[in-house]
Amino acid sequence: MFEKTERTKIARKPDRGRYDRETVHAIIDEALYCHVGIVVNERPVVIPTAHWRQGDRLYMHGSRVSRLIEAMAAGADICVTITLLDGLVLARSGFHHSMNYRSVVIFGQAAPIEGRRAKLAAMRAFMERIAPGRWDELRPPTGKEIAATGIVALKLDEASAKVRAGPPADDEADYAHPVWAGVVPVTESLGEPVPDPSLAPGIALPAYLGRRTGAKG
Amino acid sequence: MFEKTERTKIARKPDRGRYDRETVHAIIDEALYCHVGIVVNERPVVIPTAHWRQGDRLYMHGSRVSRLIEAMAAGADICVTITLLDGLVLARSGFHHSMNYRSVVIFGQAAPIEGRRAKLAAMRAFMERIAPGRWDELRPPTGKEIAATGIVALKLDEASAKVRAGPPADDEADYAHPVWAGVVPVTESLGEPVPDPSLAPGIALPAYLGRRTGAKG
Repeated sequence: MFEKTERTKIARKPDRGRYDRETVHAIIDEALYCHVGIVVNERPVVIPTAHWRQGDRLYMHGSRVSRLIEAMAAGADICVTITLLDGLVLARSGFHHSMNYRSVVIFGQAAPIEGRRAKLAAMRAFMERIAPGRWDELRPPTGKEIAATGIVALKLDEASAKVRAGPPADDEADYAHPVWAGVVPVTESLGEPVPDPSLAPGIALPAYLGRRTGAKG
Repeated sequence: MFEKTERTKIARKPDRGRYDRETVHAIIDEALYCHVGIVVNERPVVIPTAHWRQGDRLYMHGSRVSRLIEAMAAGADICVTITLLDGLVLARSGFHHSMNYRSVVIFGQAAPIEGRRAKLAAMRAFMERIAPGRWDELRPPTGKEIAATGIVALKLDEASAKVRAGPPADDEADYAHPVWAGVVPVTESLGEPVPDPSLAPGIALPAYLGRRTGAKG
């Protein structure tokens, strides 16, 4: 369980708060990207970026000289928010309309991953998450590429999740109101892979993509 | 066109920057939610919330006494970021792996929407966006509900979009490397509406949901 802090305790709709690592990890692992907030000149900046998790750490990467990676590597306070939208909740009154979602908010300071071996291990872990087995098929990274890539890890210390699921919660008297009510599910899915127009003939779709997307390998 | 400012000018991969209103509006209108960054005690906080657009303003709402709505209504500096993930870009080297996406970043200060008539018009506009025609079918809002709802609008003055599309951009020498390369599309879609278990018998799925999701009305 994560300890509730002033920042992670869910103030609005506290029954939606989740503080167990299993829920937080599952949301992090399902999402393909997060939004990172930093403070620049006393004002907020929010940037989307890919992420992955290794154990109790959230990893992010980018160009080593990007403003976001530089700020994170330097230990800036960050807030990482991850949101999965699950449905539109249509109630009998406008007031009770809502969305079903699972979100995670993490506060802290990231630390840079330094050294060729540690960076390569992190990059491999990221690729394993997206396309298991692909890393070893690729043209190997050059020293220059490894040096140009900035990787940071944020320990999952101060984190919480917020989850809404299920049908609308209408006022008791409104259940008699004759309007359709329910949930319109929202799903994010991977489609049929589109080969690079420059792909050499005879290179088949790898099994890890067929498995993931339902297409044939 | 939006004027490029120090904050909105795309520094990394400047060729991905878009500053025309048409692109910015289209991304805002397609997305169902955004991430809002604010500064609290000199540290960043990023919260997901629903949004809609009316003309050159981005609207958000919530409980009038939520911390986010209170801060926005009081004129806090905010950064609103909207991200649509379109695909995973699988290149021949790890280094050139990427994602296809469309994102918008907006900086500014929101202003509260005050008064019963203005708030009702904004709520109706939000519902029209999700489910055209539904507003008039609902149990009408009470004065208490209208008073409890906080609505803010952020003028689209300082905004830009960033877009990546298309196949991987590999190093010239890597096109001969025998690994599958291409794009795995990612799409967010609405599913078959799920009626509230408490829905009274005989209430049909409204046409506006059938049209939107492809299900039968």
